[in-house]
Amino acid sequence: MRCEVVAVGTELLLGQINDTNSSWIGQELAAVGIDSHFQTKVGDNLDRMVSVIRHALSRSDAVICTGGLGPTQDDITRDAIAAVMGVDLEVDEELVAKIESMWGLRGREMPANNRQQARIPVGAQAIPVQPGTAPGIVATFEFDGESKTIYAVPGVPWEMHDMMSGFIIDDMVRRSGSQSIIRSRTLRTWGQSESGLAELLADEITRLDATGDADGGVTLAFLASGIEGLKLRITAKGPDEELVSAQLDEEEARVREIIGPIVFGVDDQTMESVILSLCVEQGLTLGTAESLTGGLIAQRLTATPGSSAAFRGGVVTYATDVKTSLLHVPAGPSVSEEMVEAMARGACKVLGADVSIATTGVAGPDAWEGIPPGTVWIATCIEGEVETQLLRYRTDRNRTRQYTTITVLNELRKRLESRA
Amino acid sequence: MRCEVVAVGTELLLGQINDTNSSWIGQELAAVGIDSHFQTKVGDNLDRMVSVIRHALSRSDAVICTGGLGPTQDDITRDAIAAVMGVDLEVDEELVAKIESMWGLRGREMPANNRQQARIPVGAQAIPVQPGTAPGIVATFEFDGESKTIYAVPGVPWEMHDMMSGFIIDDMVRRSGSQSIIRSRTLRTWGQSESGLAELLADEITRLDATGDADGGVTLAFLASGIEGLKLRITAKGPDEELVSAQLDEEEARVREIIGPIVFGVDDQTMESVILSLCVEQGLTLGTAESLTGGLIAQRLTATPGSSAAFRGGVVTYATDVKTSLLHVPAGPSVSEEMVEAMARGACKVLGADVSIATTGVAGPDAWEGIPPGTVWIATCIEGEVETQLLRYRTDRNRTRQYTTITVLNELRKRLESRA
Repeated sequence: MRCEVVAVGTELLLGQINDTNSSWIGQELAAVGIDSHFQTKVGDNLDRMVSVIRHALSRSDAVICTGGLGPTQDDITRDAIAAVMGVDLEVDEELVAKIESMWGLRGREMPANNRQQARIPVGAQAIPVQPGTAPGIVATFEFDGESKTIYAVPGVPWEMHDMMSGFIIDDMVRRSGSQSIIRSRTLRTWGQSESGLAELLADEITRLDATGDADGGVTLAFLASGIEGLKLRITAKGPDEELVSAQLDEEEARVREIIGPIVFGVDDQTMESVILSLCVEQGLTLGTAESLTGGLIAQRLTATPGSSAAFRGGVVTYATDVKTSLLHVPAGPSVSEEMVEAMARGACKVLGADVSIATTGVAGPDAWEGIPPGTVWIATCIEGEVETQLLRYRTDRNRTRQYTTITVLNELRKRLESRA
Repeated sequence: MRCEVVAVGTELLLGQINDTNSSWIGQELAAVGIDSHFQTKVGDNLDRMVSVIRHALSRSDAVICTGGLGPTQDDITRDAIAAVMGVDLEVDEELVAKIESMWGLRGREMPANNRQQARIPVGAQAIPVQPGTAPGIVATFEFDGESKTIYAVPGVPWEMHDMMSGFIIDDMVRRSGSQSIIRSRTLRTWGQSESGLAELLADEITRLDATGDADGGVTLAFLASGIEGLKLRITAKGPDEELVSAQLDEEEARVREIIGPIVFGVDDQTMESVILSLCVEQGLTLGTAESLTGGLIAQRLTATPGSSAAFRGGVVTYATDVKTSLLHVPAGPSVSEEMVEAMARGACKVLGADVSIATTGVAGPDAWEGIPPGTVWIATCIEGEVETQLLRYRTDRNRTRQYTTITVLNELRKRLESRA
């Protein structure tokens, strides 16, 4: 099965918004084995949209259009699909009632314009999953003698995600002749390269390849995510939710057995949310002492809703004498193991925290007091016990700070997990 | 003139990398009045690349391909262009020597593979601007009876940027029949909506529209950049660098006269870099006391190379008693004008700083002690003089923190500038 993506919106062509929808859809399609060979951006212009959709249908089985489903005059994806199908648009009164009731739930009356959103090409249907007020569209029809399908989803990412995961992927798999459903789970890892992870899992991937077939089975895929680590995606195909869910559980356990504690979270969990949960579970409070990372660690922790349940605060000791005055560290070289250990102990003390993280180093671009940029000391302290580590990066200022942040958070995560 | 963008790379279709190049190119083309009606992503597959480039040439005057110019086997943009032109590739020995010398400057020998990068379609030329080891390609040839141009640039953003700004834009403008060159300057603003800015500048835009013609003149364009504010782009067209540069200076002065101090920087300047420069110029040191923003402000300041010349450090006082113990603020409600003022004064004192920023508030998603989420107090302190402000946001946790950060930085920027 081949499916193209058409992202609609003049603002995408002008670069006012980055088209991230196509990339996300490409990931989802690849996970279930659907090829996406072309992805096109086109402006809010009827003739050009029609021409792009027709061209896409001529070389693929399905097209997913994102954007252009709003209530205003430039939202003409509905019109373009009707033109490609050679049919009219008709107001679906049931859909109008549904949209009205959604506005009602928000305590507001539906603006008259939004009636536009209930216009559906004759022969097409509204997508049954509708997270926002904009209905999606699915249409299967004969095009140049073959049966083709067009899906249209809103450009708002979360509405698009819900329609993809809740309807379109399953619908495509079904149309491709399979009776199976497909679900996936993402294990988030830190501390292994893509090739290292692939090597560790080589035997398991061979085993999975041998046992799966068109209607069932499990696959593994890697997704590099830069400073967010490597994602390992487990995808399971089977006849019903229960069986697929059991397959995911079983494979997750097997993978964790093989790759061990480099898995820091599942799906939407972040390194920070995992650490904060571990602290709360263990009744521990948390503080930070940052030099090199300059607030990056505290900022990530406090970005997590509910962080105040464990996070007490942090100090950013950029000038050397601030390290002494705020954290009461003894005088000595600023970038050293002694310093980072003293900073971690000082953070626990002055912040009244059970657990702390500390960083010091040379971010660059220039060397500092003869120490090359990329030289970093990190420390974690749990109830008085400090562990330190020397890191050496050969990258830019931004990445040195980002990698240091995730690395020291990961060290703390591993220590907290080993106590659990 | 119409120009399409073709972004090459299977990793783009799979969503492993977001295609930001097309958006950036779209911005640049729009700034000089070149239409870009379609932008396509295609994988590293010769037949599909050839088909996409041919289709693009059939409806546009020029095509810019990004990516696929590396030295490995999947880098086949050169081959695709040669196939579209119906010619062979030939090694350009001068180009080999140039690439070898670039490797030599880095103290390394050129790997044999990189000779591939000097293969140029017969009749095409290497783009004279070559910031990295990968040469770009420009080819003008007859296609379906019309003269068309293909440009190929590397997928590495900074190499692509340099080739676009240093050669391609001028080359396109020249090919479109104009003798002019085009240069632009971006004024970065904070504190006005797009419609507000458009209203302020309406008369000036009308005046510019009336005075410009195809070969010369100045235009203004707005670019919303979310939490980075609104960018106002001045583009000038004229016969030579000197005149165009004078036009940009004159228009910048005129615009600044109209919109006043909402301009915080020019081109690559950030709010942080401007503040740090102002502090250094005025011999002032800087510190932060953050509750709501949790380290975001300190992190942004320290992300700027050379920040240690002015930035002394910060405290993140998340728990209420840490505000008291670290900053010695008097007991009292955590989210209040008294608190934010005391935090700002405390930051100057404990950090030994002349200038400080303080934030406290309710980030959400939930209310806190009856105070609704989005309630924020900010303060700036310069040599003992404190100014405070109450902000109210109706947005999510992340945006509340981000908007607070940029708003308080902007308040400090304005105060420092008014002293200069």
